[in-house]
Amino acid sequence: MRTEIATLGEFGLIDHLTEGIQLQNDSTKKGIGDDAAVLSYPADRQVLVTTDLLLEGVHFDLVYTPLKHLGYKAAVVNFSDIYAMNGTPRQITVSLGVSKRFSVEDMEQLYAGIRLACEDYGVDIVGGDTTSSLTGLTISITCIGEAGEDQIVYRNGAHETDLICVSGNLGAAYMGLQLLEREKKVLAGADKDVQPDFAGREYILERQLKPEARRDIIEKLHDAGIKPTAMMDISDGLSSELMHICKQSGKGCRIYEEHLPIDYQTAAMAEEFNMNLTTCALNGGEDYELLFTVPLTDHEKIQEISDVRLIGHITKPELGCALITRDGQEFELKAQGWNPLK
Amino acid sequence: MRTEIATLGEFGLIDHLTEGIQLQNDSTKKGIGDDAAVLSYPADRQVLVTTDLLLEGVHFDLVYTPLKHLGYKAAVVNFSDIYAMNGTPRQITVSLGVSKRFSVEDMEQLYAGIRLACEDYGVDIVGGDTTSSLTGLTISITCIGEAGEDQIVYRNGAHETDLICVSGNLGAAYMGLQLLEREKKVLAGADKDVQPDFAGREYILERQLKPEARRDIIEKLHDAGIKPTAMMDISDGLSSELMHICKQSGKGCRIYEEHLPIDYQTAAMAEEFNMNLTTCALNGGEDYELLFTVPLTDHEKIQEISDVRLIGHITKPELGCALITRDGQEFELKAQGWNPLK
Repeated sequence: MRTEIATLGEFGLIDHLTEGIQLQNDSTKKGIGDDAAVLSYPADRQVLVTTDLLLEGVHFDLVYTPLKHLGYKAAVVNFSDIYAMNGTPRQITVSLGVSKRFSVEDMEQLYAGIRLACEDYGVDIVGGDTTSSLTGLTISITCIGEAGEDQIVYRNGAHETDLICVSGNLGAAYMGLQLLEREKKVLAGADKDVQPDFAGREYILERQLKPEARRDIIEKLHDAGIKPTAMMDISDGLSSELMHICKQSGKGCRIYEEHLPIDYQTAAMAEEFNMNLTTCALNGGEDYELLFTVPLTDHEKIQEISDVRLIGHITKPELGCALITRDGQEFELKAQGWNPLK
Repeated sequence: MRTEIATLGEFGLIDHLTEGIQLQNDSTKKGIGDDAAVLSYPADRQVLVTTDLLLEGVHFDLVYTPLKHLGYKAAVVNFSDIYAMNGTPRQITVSLGVSKRFSVEDMEQLYAGIRLACEDYGVDIVGGDTTSSLTGLTISITCIGEAGEDQIVYRNGAHETDLICVSGNLGAAYMGLQLLEREKKVLAGADKDVQPDFAGREYILERQLKPEARRDIIEKLHDAGIKPTAMMDISDGLSSELMHICKQSGKGCRIYEEHLPIDYQTAAMAEEFNMNLTTCALNGGEDYELLFTVPLTDHEKIQEISDVRLIGHITKPELGCALITRDGQEFELKAQGWNPLK
């Protein structure tokens, strides 16, 4: 079944997609339906704002990306930015540019994913814009969150001797993408009966197609009484992000190859592709893990937190940013991360 | 001179475009440069959020739209939504999708327009996202503003017998667009020496290419002690917007053809194009004027405010929404406004 979007028009489509949305947060006073959403935060809370623009053919390929997953991911990557400030996401606005290729049912799928992410993370959809597009799908999401003033963690607070920590593992989403791209090419030249071979690769595919934001890590750090000195989420690759923290904090760093957390499936896939695993972990991108620094005195506390790994330490700026390999060599870090403008 | 964007990369481009931005508002605690912007509003202020997505070929045509004007307009249309809530715009985020067709100098022009609008209206650029695009230019702006809780004006507050008011005049931006489209066609088939004929049309061109948000009207209403019962800005045409107010307020309305404010240039252009002037004024779109209702008791006060016109009144819902023509006939209003999804 395919319903053309033109049969509903802009307002009809928005009404249809946002029907039955329940507002979950006290801070949301007025959601969709006026010139602007109205929010109200207590005096002791600061307001966090982040935004992401996703374009078809640049950030996602609908040949292998289900629209529901895409909607989920588009929302979650914004939540990740709010958690990376040590905050809590509360509202999003969703703007969509949609070409005639897409039906009302397609948009229902996309929105179902956005709504699912919002339910899972307790976020309200409070506004947006829907328009036609000449070419493909455009998704622009802005997320608003909150945090106490003393609670916010910036990128520029890392001190010498601070420990560098990372949640989860690295490079999995990137290897998932490589796998999807390979199967796309295989299928393009194959009979209809050929099925993509994803057996045993479910984890890296999920990391690429349906990432999660690390709310759990933020909660664990809070419960353990740890406030990171600097933090950001890893979207462009560990190497690039670590250099942001060091640059903004005016410091250097040393990280250790042997301590980089890497999942078995990521390693197996890299071997199959004959790719350097450490390069994948350093520059893969789209991990949406948290990278943060804590004072040396938090060493024991951090080690008790599951799914967080110590990978190195902050140094004087003169020492630069470097990776120490398994055989003790020092390589200068480079921000080779995914650059969509090159 | 043409510098390829790839020579700067994403972060280099953002740094370049946002260099020297001065934050103007106390509520802006941290602008560009972290995972999220940080804002802090006093307890008695509510936070307003609005967003607009502009796509090349759908919302603007770069054949006749200077990039600096486009940037200015993209920002101002968002400010207009905040004023339409009776609020004050304070911050924006700017996301750009840019194809290889555009140079660093092009983006400087676009950003110069955005920055000029922000300076004029006292708004801070606090974040955004810049990425490559396969096709043309994408601009997504989110604006954050503030207002006292008691001060906010929604669309749903119109009462029976309220007066319907509109600022400025209607249909001018639409006629400016018609003129630009005509000259584009003429020039496409002409010699290089032919120049477009815009003499005496400057006003309607400016209304299309460099609209302003009606901050002045909001200030005048405030100074006169008038709080509208319902308000919105006119982006899709008077007819469409008035029906939103009536629907959300559960009311009907009567407006009078003879009272619709129309500029001389708009009328002259409509005549030249052999278009019905009233239709242009009702459905033209992109006016960015304010449409609002006030209690009958504010009748005298409203008449003292320059550049505001009374065009009709709110009625019982059973009477529907209608235009009374100069010869006393009644026509049901229809939301024929510009629908980019049809």
